[in-house]
Amino acid sequence: MSARVIRVVLEYDGTGFAGWQIQPDMRTVQKEVEEALERLTGSGCRVHAAGRTDAGVHALGQVVSFTTESRLEVDRFVPGLNRFLPADIVAKKADEAPPGFHARYSAVSKTYEYRCVVCRGRRPLAGRTAWEVWPPPDVAAMSLAARELLGTHDFAAFAASGRMPGPTVRTMRRALVEEIETGGDPGLSLTFTADGFLYKMVRNIVGTLIEVGQGKRTVEAVRDALLLGRRELSGPTAPAKGLTLIGVDYEPPA
Amino acid sequence: MSARVIRVVLEYDGTGFAGWQIQPDMRTVQKEVEEALERLTGSGCRVHAAGRTDAGVHALGQVVSFTTESRLEVDRFVPGLNRFLPADIVAKKADEAPPGFHARYSAVSKTYEYRCVVCRGRRPLAGRTAWEVWPPPDVAAMSLAARELLGTHDFAAFAASGRMPGPTVRTMRRALVEEIETGGDPGLSLTFTADGFLYKMVRNIVGTLIEVGQGKRTVEAVRDALLLGRRELSGPTAPAKGLTLIGVDYEPPA
Repeated sequence: MSARVIRVVLEYDGTGFAGWQIQPDMRTVQKEVEEALERLTGSGCRVHAAGRTDAGVHALGQVVSFTTESRLEVDRFVPGLNRFLPADIVAKKADEAPPGFHARYSAVSKTYEYRCVVCRGRRPLAGRTAWEVWPPPDVAAMSLAARELLGTHDFAAFAASGRMPGPTVRTMRRALVEEIETGGDPGLSLTFTADGFLYKMVRNIVGTLIEVGQGKRTVEAVRDALLLGRRELSGPTAPAKGLTLIGVDYEPPA
Repeated sequence: MSARVIRVVLEYDGTGFAGWQIQPDMRTVQKEVEEALERLTGSGCRVHAAGRTDAGVHALGQVVSFTTESRLEVDRFVPGLNRFLPADIVAKKADEAPPGFHARYSAVSKTYEYRCVVCRGRRPLAGRTAWEVWPPPDVAAMSLAARELLGTHDFAAFAASGRMPGPTVRTMRRALVEEIETGGDPGLSLTFTADGFLYKMVRNIVGTLIEVGQGKRTVEAVRDALLLGRRELSGPTAPAKGLTLIGVDYEPPA
């Protein structure tokens, strides 16, 4: 059996990790997954993630891929990895991907959800995966501002300041603000689907939309920020804990 | 100003606690709350909880009461306690209760919710506050069995084995099984309202109802367990992590 590309879907609670990517002396998701895979297959290999989630960001449907010489049957990867993964990461699905598949480069789009709890003060339960916001934001105004983001734009205004050089044009296919109930408090779910996201882009968008909802910023200001591409025209970065990578889409097999 | 009784509503994530009640060398909710209160008011006092939640059990609306000589205004208790409470406990509301009020003895009813995720394997995100169950239970059968619990019964069959002596008759006002969605998987929410609960009663009921849903136990067997009052006729104890004390009801002031 020659080398195969295996694709695995992971869920993790980002609270205890310094993000996806391996860093010296840090507990990262990539490190845990690569170590579990090495214990399972007996040989080390590099694991690539669709979204290199930041410290504190969660995933319900992170997709990772790796090339392995292991002869392990594909349906043994989920139980095998889960025997070695820590309690805050789980493998949910595995399949054999087409040759040349790469979790990040082959992705067509990614979906992130950002959750807020509308409350004064902290929330120990819901607040693990949601940002506590107050005063209550106006959802209609946030929805109008979110609609400005749809389509193909230069998202430079929403990239992390001090960002790496590179193209900043992305196509946003979905930008939805919905009211939810979360742990007895009202809440908001903000869902974004795009062909790609700049570093901290979702969290910068959410920080901006919440300010629109709270009347500190206008819908027109969001449009201007997009057009002018200047970070100082957008809002603060929302905390990592409210962000979850929901899923990744790939081309259906031909 | 003479001694007042103050009532506070707490939310906590039970994961990191050995339950409510003070025990030597253990991290408990009562210990953290009494210490925060002592730092706030300058004098120690005993804090009573409506539900003495077990290790790992969460609360969205735990009610606690204490008698204090402190002259602190009542609306300063929430921000004051939150300055000293750890990140996994928060005070949400405080008011002055009528003289003689006691969070547990004055309670008219309590409501607990138990959550399940229907999935193979673990779920690091939803699984913090829900029990992963598989195979998928039949919700209609569970609802029929839950209906048997409504009304006044001797719940001895659902008390912890080796329980303390004492009356085991309780009145169940609500026993509801609902389908929910949780972190991309189907889930179940089981809600119980009663005038009181025996030790581990909700978790024993849930373990039994899940077995009914999975075809391992009949609705008639649940009826028999209630009638005969024998613990060995009911199912296993569901894990603590799925249980949350939602709220406590008191008589409206006369």
